[in-house]
Amino acid sequence: MYKAVIVMGSKSDLPVVRGAYDTLVKFGVETDVHVLSAHRTPHEACALAEQAEANGVGVMICCAGKAAHLAGVVAGHTTLPVIGLPIKSSTMDGLDSLLSTVQMPSGVPVATVAINGAENAGLLAVQILALSDSGLKEKLHAHKKQMAEKIIADDKAIMDILKSSKD
Amino acid sequence: MYKAVIVMGSKSDLPVVRGAYDTLVKFGVETDVHVLSAHRTPHEACALAEQAEANGVGVMICCAGKAAHLAGVVAGHTTLPVIGLPIKSSTMDGLDSLLSTVQMPSGVPVATVAINGAENAGLLAVQILALSDSGLKEKLHAHKKQMAEKIIADDKAIMDILKSSKD
Amino acid sequence: MYKAVIVMGSKSDLPVVRGAYDTLVKFGVETDVHVLSAHRTPHEACALAEQAEANGVGVMICCAGKAAHLAGVVAGHTTLPVIGLPIKSSTMDGLDSLLSTVQMPSGVPVATVAINGAENAGLLAVQILALSDSGLKEKLHAHKKQMAEKIIADDKAIMDILKSSKD
Amino acid sequence: MYKAVIVMGSKSDLPVVRGAYDTLVKFGVETDVHVLSAHRTPHEACALAEQAEANGVGVMICCAGKAAHLAGVVAGHTTLPVIGLPIKSSTMDGLDSLLSTVQMPSGVPVATVAINGAENAGLLAVQILALSDSGLKEKLHAHKKQMAEKIIADDKAIMDILKSSKD
Amino acid sequence: MYKAVIVMGSKSDLPVVRGAYDTLVKFGVETDVHVLSAHRTPHEACALAEQAEANGVGVMICCAGKAAHLAGVVAGHTTLPVIGLPIKSSTMDGLDSLLSTVQMPSGVPVATVAINGAENAGLLAVQILALSDSGLKEKLHAHKKQMAEKIIADDKAIMDILKSSKD
Amino acid sequence: MYKAVIVMGSKSDLPVVRGAYDTLVKFGVETDVHVLSAHRTPHEACALAEQAEANGVGVMICCAGKAAHLAGVVAGHTTLPVIGLPIKSSTMDGLDSLLSTVQMPSGVPVATVAINGAENAGLLAVQILALSDSGLKEKLHAHKKQMAEKIIADDKAIMDILKSSKD
Amino acid sequence: MYKAVIVMGSKSDLPVVRGAYDTLVKFGVETDVHVLSAHRTPHEACALAEQAEANGVGVMICCAGKAAHLAGVVAGHTTLPVIGLPIKSSTMDGLDSLLSTVQMPSGVPVATVAINGAENAGLLAVQILALSDSGLKEKLHAHKKQMAEKIIADDKAIMDILKSSKD
Amino acid sequence: MYKAVIVMGSKSDLPVVRGAYDTLVKFGVETDVHVLSAHRTPHEACALAEQAEANGVGVMICCAGKAAHLAGVVAGHTTLPVIGLPIKSSTMDGLDSLLSTVQMPSGVPVATVAINGAENAGLLAVQILALSDSGLKEKLHAHKKQMAEKIIADDKAIMDILKSSKD
Repeated sequence: MYKAVIVMGSKSDLPVVRGAYDTLVKFGVETDVHVLSAHRTPHEACALAEQAEANGVGVMICCAGKAAHLAGVVAGHTTLPVIGLPIKSSTMDGLDSLLSTVQMPSGVPVATVAINGAENAGLLAVQILALSDSGLKEKLHAHKKQMAEKIIADDKAIMDILKSSKD
Repeated sequence: MYKAVIVMGSKSDLPVVRGAYDTLVKFGVETDVHVLSAHRTPHEACALAEQAEANGVGVMICCAGKAAHLAGVVAGHTTLPVIGLPIKSSTMDGLDSLLSTVQMPSGVPVATVAINGAENAGLLAVQILALSDSGLKEKLHAHKKQMAEKIIADDKAIMDILKSSKD
Repeated sequence: MYKAVIVMGSKSDLPVVRGAYDTLVKFGVETDVHVLSAHRTPHEACALAEQAEANGVGVMICCAGKAAHLAGVVAGHTTLPVIGLPIKSSTMDGLDSLLSTVQMPSGVPVATVAINGAENAGLLAVQILALSDSGLKEKLHAHKKQMAEKIIADDKAIMDILKSSKD
Repeated sequence: MYKAVIVMGSKSDLPVVRGAYDTLVKFGVETDVHVLSAHRTPHEACALAEQAEANGVGVMICCAGKAAHLAGVVAGHTTLPVIGLPIKSSTMDGLDSLLSTVQMPSGVPVATVAINGAENAGLLAVQILALSDSGLKEKLHAHKKQMAEKIIADDKAIMDILKSSKD
Repeated sequence: MYKAVIVMGSKSDLPVVRGAYDTLVKFGVETDVHVLSAHRTPHEACALAEQAEANGVGVMICCAGKAAHLAGVVAGHTTLPVIGLPIKSSTMDGLDSLLSTVQMPSGVPVATVAINGAENAGLLAVQILALSDSGLKEKLHAHKKQMAEKIIADDKAIMDILKSSKD
Repeated sequence: MYKAVIVMGSKSDLPVVRGAYDTLVKFGVETDVHVLSAHRTPHEACALAEQAEANGVGVMICCAGKAAHLAGVVAGHTTLPVIGLPIKSSTMDGLDSLLSTVQMPSGVPVATVAINGAENAGLLAVQILALSDSGLKEKLHAHKKQMAEKIIADDKAIMDILKSSKD
Repeated sequence: MYKAVIVMGSKSDLPVVRGAYDTLVKFGVETDVHVLSAHRTPHEACALAEQAEANGVGVMICCAGKAAHLAGVVAGHTTLPVIGLPIKSSTMDGLDSLLSTVQMPSGVPVATVAINGAENAGLLAVQILALSDSGLKEKLHAHKKQMAEKIIADDKAIMDILKSSKD
Repeated sequence: MYKAVIVMGSKSDLPVVRGAYDTLVKFGVETDVHVLSAHRTPHEACALAEQAEANGVGVMICCAGKAAHLAGVVAGHTTLPVIGLPIKSSTMDGLDSLLSTVQMPSGVPVATVAINGAENAGLLAVQILALSDSGLKEKLHAHKKQMAEKIIADDKAIMDILKSSKD
């Protein structure tokens, strides 16, 4: 069974990134987490990417903000699927991170999720790994069902909430 | 071995979508192609998504423009990884398609590639399927090497091109 | 007389959505409210849309944020007029919700109001229903007159406010 | 039975606006078309809006580009539902028209459709009028079915198109 | 000597608009202030604009947010110079107000200043009125000199501020 | 009677700028035209601005694209009203020119018109000069009437155009 | 050895600008700091730029927000490399400052860094000066190494932080 | 004397990049040109950057489009000043390239010029190299003078062009 790897460009991204890690852990996927920068530690970031396949990694999640090059750089050093998680930073409301992550040139895709969409980055990794792990598939089906049930419960309650909050 | 499915929202998207199909065919992945709209044929689109896993599909590529809901709707009906390919339409330069595809709520990820990035949509599908197909892995390594060699050949030639075009 | 239905994609949208509900109630329109997600409960959302016409519904208001697919998906399952209310979320300042809601392909319109424009969503529903309900028409005329009177009262007071706040 | 009115801000908008007119005519809705500017003929535009209800009009479609004030100004003079059709002009790719049309203040909604989405403007008008015209309802159901059939026909043909274009 | 008129679309704009009023008062320009909406009190807004020239007004400042139509509508009813002051509202960071104000069609200009640039709206009005009032010209020259002197004083102090804040 | 001055940042702006010149000439305003760059001929641009008032100039129109600094720089050297005309260049669709022109800091306003809105730049200059020239006022009233008559003629013709183009 | 000069458009930019000053001081570069506005003190700003080369300055950093003309205006008066630091202001999230700084016309470049990227403005100045100062080169190599070591230390600690924060 | 290096991400960028090369050649700067991709030939791109300083390079110009990572990646491997030239590609009008190039994190600056601003990239490189080459300084002064003279000649001619084109 494959491992997952999460790489964040800066330790300050941890509060967002945690959502991806928690999701992977909840599904029982062995997950390594790293802080490595495409610009400040390029050698270490590239080495991690190049050795990932041999180390039993199946999917990599890369999280970065602003000119978010981390996912693209990692994708340049591996043929594993690379998930890009754009982080909203203090300016440009995340648009810079999104475009820097998703607009990759032909030949080197990055599977990009929503700005700050950490849970979805983790879930997409699980979906990818589930193709070769029937246990994960079952958990995904159960998770999908639970999500629906939660919404349906909210739906049942909403008219009461609306009306009671009037009184 | 898993199949891939490509769904486009309108037949007019075919010139862009072909890049994804050609890539999958080049790598030898069995690929079905459909024209189904999240809005105009919702039942057929949902049925395709719901039956995909049972039909041996491993990954789905969904292509749409403007308020591009197709990938998200398909992702709501399957736990397979869904790749979103935003198509540039006649207004807003593709920004509407990109945001409609990538900004998915928690629980239902779409693996989004660049606007009109059809080849990358196909390549990402291959990378995902390669996790359970060592033959694809080898082809990906060879493809990555060829891309590099082509650039290196361009690099060798560029000074001559520059100088000769002066004379 | 037709009913109205409000559907929100997540219970967390309630503080915004309430403005639409309150407006409909103020005008005396019978209104059902639902929490249903285009992605997490697609079957329930589609069933609601498909049965709306038979259930005496005249207009549906759909509220969602980010990649806001709810209004478009509902519009794909009914020929009733569907009002889209884009919700501002934590990134992109509502531009993603607006474009995902308004940029619908030919054949499936969504009547989109301003980002977080809940009161206007309700009022537009009233205007639509008023075409077959002369009582609503009268209330709309009275409401328009009241709005004008409030502004005119503000206009009368403003010079005094300006000057007194100087002293 | 109600009439529809289409107002465009400039005669040069006619190539886009025609799509709305043709749709209304196809559905058999009596439709008046006007060229009136919110800025250059404000009196005539306002008079048209104020007299519309008494003249048997049920819905108004307003088309304008750039700082597209026409729909909002018309909506200020009537309680009929007003559909705003933002026209893409030579700069800003239609974003200026969209925001000027959709971002209306509380109390005066404009039902906005996609940039250059003329057919949808017409179709939304038909959906609104169909609430008090069962003949239109039947036509809408037939139209929805035809749209689906066209897509399903495209879906059946697409694999053959793809493969034949290879040979 | 001409008067100035300031019109705001909503009383809630007052905290921003005050900057324009205070500037006009500081320069000694007689200034009327109104709250009138292009959408909620169109008749009153248009009447104000149409009678302005006869009432001795030389320049009008119009302040509005979101789909900011007020300046354009007023400009449609007068040939006086109209200054548009776009107000930042709760979504879109003022871009909607700016585009709705500045992107006017040929024939009806609006002299637009920066988003929330109330002081500049007032100052531009003074510059326009100064063309027929030599007293205002002198005050403008004095004001320009004072602005420069304030900056030059800041320039002299800045190295000390920088260094002292280190100790 | 005051003169007008038009300054463009580059001779290549002439096709757009001509619209401003032609408008001023049509109204009989004496108008000087210059090519001067805020960056490439800063001394000449500043000298023009500083001497304008003494030279009998009443209003200046400054046209530039990209990082459009010309209007702002000129406004820094005069207390005359300065009209900024943002020119659409080959990238960014004019948004860069618009923001660079309109977002001026407090104390130095630029009266900005629409991107490529040359006719309006000219017309705004006429409106400003008309405050001290009753002949211009009369021409403005006549011009406004003619604009309305042209639209009303279009309005009369439009139904015939629509129907005849069907046959 | 060359000096550096930092110019800010307003004293209120100091909290951001300090990052550039502190970086230059840390590297031991003699640095003058000025508050001068391209619009409010154009003569002083231009004089500073024109005399910089003769005064032993090697690089200038210009910081401004909104319609940020300062860097461009300074670059118009010198052939020294000019670094532009766009400041995020209260509207438009810094996009106006960025475009006003970076989109310079041919012939007058501004070396633009990230919005509010003050440390990088300082560091780029050091990199430029290091070409003629081998001591600075050594410090840059040491600084790059320290940055990497800090990240590598974060990388070592991150799994422990993640896990401990769970208990 | 230092050399310059230009690196483009794809041979297809050559028509734009040539403007930078031609400028450097015109100023007599020895310039190497390379085609190397941050994603497809990461090792070669990094090696080029790491060896640049030892090879006598003083400044590097990196040109790329879409998710333009090249300049940032090169800057991660050198302490030389790196100039980023964002290339406009087929979608997003260059905004993606600009943000991906300029929004670099602290510690690794990229000196960004305008979208497609190739001549300015070359000129900025010359300005940087001129700090240690007095011959380049003289050429820069001469170039600045010539630019001004060209504009002044345009200025002299413009009134004649305007008037003659009328006859």
